[in-house]
Amino acid sequence: MDKNLVPNISVDAVVFGFDTQHLNILLVTRPVRYNNKDYVDWKFPGDLIRMEEDLDTSAKRILYEQTGLQNIYLKQLKAFGDTDRLKREPRDMAWLYSIDHPEERVITIPYFGLVNLTKDIDYKTTLKGNARWFPVDEVPELPLAFDHRDIFLFALEMLQNGMRSGPLAFELLPQKFTLGQLQRVYEVIFKKKLDKRNFRKKTATLSYIVPLHEKEKGVAHRPARLYMFSKDIYQKLHAHQFGFSV
Amino acid sequence: MDKNLVPNISVDAVVFGFDTQHLNILLVTRPVRYNNKDYVDWKFPGDLIRMEEDLDTSAKRILYEQTGLQNIYLKQLKAFGDTDRLKREPRDMAWLYSIDHPEERVITIPYFGLVNLTKDIDYKTTLKGNARWFPVDEVPELPLAFDHRDIFLFALEMLQNGMRSGPLAFELLPQKFTLGQLQRVYEVIFKKKLDKRNFRKKTATLSYIVPLHEKEKGVAHRPARLYMFSKDIYQKLHAHQFGFSV
Repeated sequence: MDKNLVPNISVDAVVFGFDTQHLNILLVTRPVRYNNKDYVDWKFPGDLIRMEEDLDTSAKRILYEQTGLQNIYLKQLKAFGDTDRLKREPRDMAWLYSIDHPEERVITIPYFGLVNLTKDIDYKTTLKGNARWFPVDEVPELPLAFDHRDIFLFALEMLQNGMRSGPLAFELLPQKFTLGQLQRVYEVIFKKKLDKRNFRKKTATLSYIVPLHEKEKGVAHRPARLYMFSKDIYQKLHAHQFGFSV
Repeated sequence: MDKNLVPNISVDAVVFGFDTQHLNILLVTRPVRYNNKDYVDWKFPGDLIRMEEDLDTSAKRILYEQTGLQNIYLKQLKAFGDTDRLKREPRDMAWLYSIDHPEERVITIPYFGLVNLTKDIDYKTTLKGNARWFPVDEVPELPLAFDHRDIFLFALEMLQNGMRSGPLAFELLPQKFTLGQLQRVYEVIFKKKLDKRNFRKKTATLSYIVPLHEKEKGVAHRPARLYMFSKDIYQKLHAHQFGFSV
């Protein structure tokens, strides 16, 4: 078959980081010259898949090469393949011309990453190259390349769905967390203030949120009790979610 | 970039059909000659994506072209892209040589389809070409091409997850169904006999399973009451699934 008539395939990494106060998203720069002016747009870490690598391997490699991040929760999302996805804006077209492939079509397979930014990552200093964490609230004002705004919104929806229907929130928290931190992650991602008393009443009924005989250390306020998420207990309960015990 | 060094992209359609008694899967033939013998293996309807079509468009086109099926529930699954996925068995290799592309690499984006086979589809006669419905129970004995057994098992797991955590079962039933049919679809897909009395008690508590003032017609046994699934009611309840009201 004529290889010039098939699309390319890339992988993008959409990584959310939570520092127990704010939700952040990891982006890298895309410099482009348009109308005799230089612009710095932002995009997700991403690149073409290599012929010899599997999809997961590719996602891990690209994330590490472009940001230095590794060993994080990473899961495949649905592919984005609209025929015009690289040609949405004049600056996207200018970029395509700058790499001598104005007719390029790339289908991308985005990966969805979650990381707790307080755990073992000094996230302000260890990022490679032009990678940077942005508070999610600032994304609407950022010049994002290609269809990366659509991918961002889809990933955010997946995060919300995952937190509604399953235990995804715990990927964003330290292994031992306070109920205040757990409440905060729900408030930030759903942009909604929750009632502290109701929230604590509810969590007390969830057997997979396990209280520890241990408190926070090194805080100015009265140290709060620490909790852990028990995957075992959660999975035993999980089978009954829709109502029919199957 | 050198286009011979990038993988191709295909779409496959993994369609489950339920006839109110059995779960079926839609397959097409892949003829291949190996060791001087002719074989007929089976595979999902699938083909390379065309340069000018979006992913969903491609899935619909390929499914229609190869099986005649259209206007069904169809949703994208995760991509399968292992480097060796077309080269698992000697007959796969023989097939790759037969199309003169022994080194071919194809990443496939499978779509997940659901259809009720009693509704408006005379499913034994209207299929095009070599397309055929197989009872899912027969799949272990079928010679499936490439990594299509992995894709099948993944899709079956998605079907089970979707039926555990959401209202996917109703895509497999006629619009108006009996509680016997609803119980049957759960029993068949989870391979598990359910207690009729408990099942009815449970469904009576689920407000989105709405009883109609209407009964089955043209059955030999005593006609059973018909029910409908209310998406509206379901969506109002759905927000609270994980426990926190967000």
